[in-house]
Amino acid sequence: MLISELSERTGTPAATIKYYVRENLLRAGERVGGNRTEYTDEHERRLKLIRAMLEVGKLSIAAVRTVLDALDEPDAPVILAFDAAQQAVSRSAVPDVAPPSAPALERVDALIARAGWHDCDDNIGRGIAAQVIDAFDNAGFPLPDDYLDSYAAAARLQAEADLDTVGILPDPARMTELVVVGTVLGDTLALGLRRMAQAVVTTERRTP
Amino acid sequence: MLISELSERTGTPAATIKYYVRENLLRAGERVGGNRTEYTDEHERRLKLIRAMLEVGKLSIAAVRTVLDALDEPDAPVILAFDAAQQAVSRSAVPDVAPPSAPALERVDALIARAGWHDCDDNIGRGIAAQVIDAFDNAGFPLPDDYLDSYAAAARLQAEADLDTVGILPDPARMTELVVVGTVLGDTLALGLRRMAQAVVTTERRTP
Repeated sequence: MLISELSERTGTPAATIKYYVRENLLRAGERVGGNRTEYTDEHERRLKLIRAMLEVGKLSIAAVRTVLDALDEPDAPVILAFDAAQQAVSRSAVPDVAPPSAPALERVDALIARAGWHDCDDNIGRGIAAQVIDAFDNAGFPLPDDYLDSYAAAARLQAEADLDTVGILPDPARMTELVVVGTVLGDTLALGLRRMAQAVVTTERRTP
Repeated sequence: MLISELSERTGTPAATIKYYVRENLLRAGERVGGNRTEYTDEHERRLKLIRAMLEVGKLSIAAVRTVLDALDEPDAPVILAFDAAQQAVSRSAVPDVAPPSAPALERVDALIARAGWHDCDDNIGRGIAAQVIDAFDNAGFPLPDDYLDSYAAAARLQAEADLDTVGILPDPARMTELVVVGTVLGDTLALGLRRMAQAVVTTERRTP
């Protein structure tokens, strides 16, 4: 298809498509004539993925590039592509503060032990959770263990749903793509539903 | 205290403190001499709150100002301050895309009905969730209802924990402050724990 059709199918201005090509997010189309360039369905799918990450996931251009690089890694075992994509997606969410304190990391490790979790000691989420514990402390609201345990239970529910959904895809490349999309967009879904649930529970507790 | 002490107690450079004053995030200190300005414990607490929102919550300066305005609203019933703070905090997370489609909003409403939720029809989270449903659709991964229901169950767990923690505070002003801090930082905590849980569940399913 020509750029005009790609533009229409994806709701993306032609100038923006050219910008993504210059930024190495999107492969250039194939020149088929003097000033005619052909784009494929693959371009269309990639473009939709880019826009979802930028607009809904609110990733930076640099973070999108890292994620796409992880997706395009040839011959990577699926599980490694999963890890790479997850880490890349998380990096843009890492709080912009000093490293977590040792006591906060200890609290996260105690939480991991209580939850019976394994193989997440070097996960990027460990430091993020510890930084949040520090931030609540600094704001004068130390978090009780009960609170952390409830959030861990919620996270497990989400992760089970994530893996249930990924597991039904037959194609490894599509599975990796869904891990990326799901990690970025799932955060935003969780945020939206948490807002609603807060309103629901607030009302329930006001009206016994 | 003088600005040097405030700076030391909060780990914030004096120039940054002055910047927050110019940006109307922080009240000016009281001039007590020619070039001496006194700051109070209230300044210290507010400053820690500002930094938690900027650095851990990753809010913009404008979003922080909106949140603080909601906190400072005089005579507002606690429940209204809750709402205002929640909406203000959420605005910076709203995906930067077209409004959600009608079918996506219908799916969110069906989800709300299945979950037995009430009083969240005009919550900002409804549109956010619908935008995510659209984005998954556009990326070629329509979300199954099971997935949405699991995420709704996780959101309720989180909200119950949020309200349990807020409920034990005796002071309405502190309660509102915790709603703000908890809404911003809780999102980041949830994100970190979700990453870890994904790693845990991935490993569990590989090793039966």
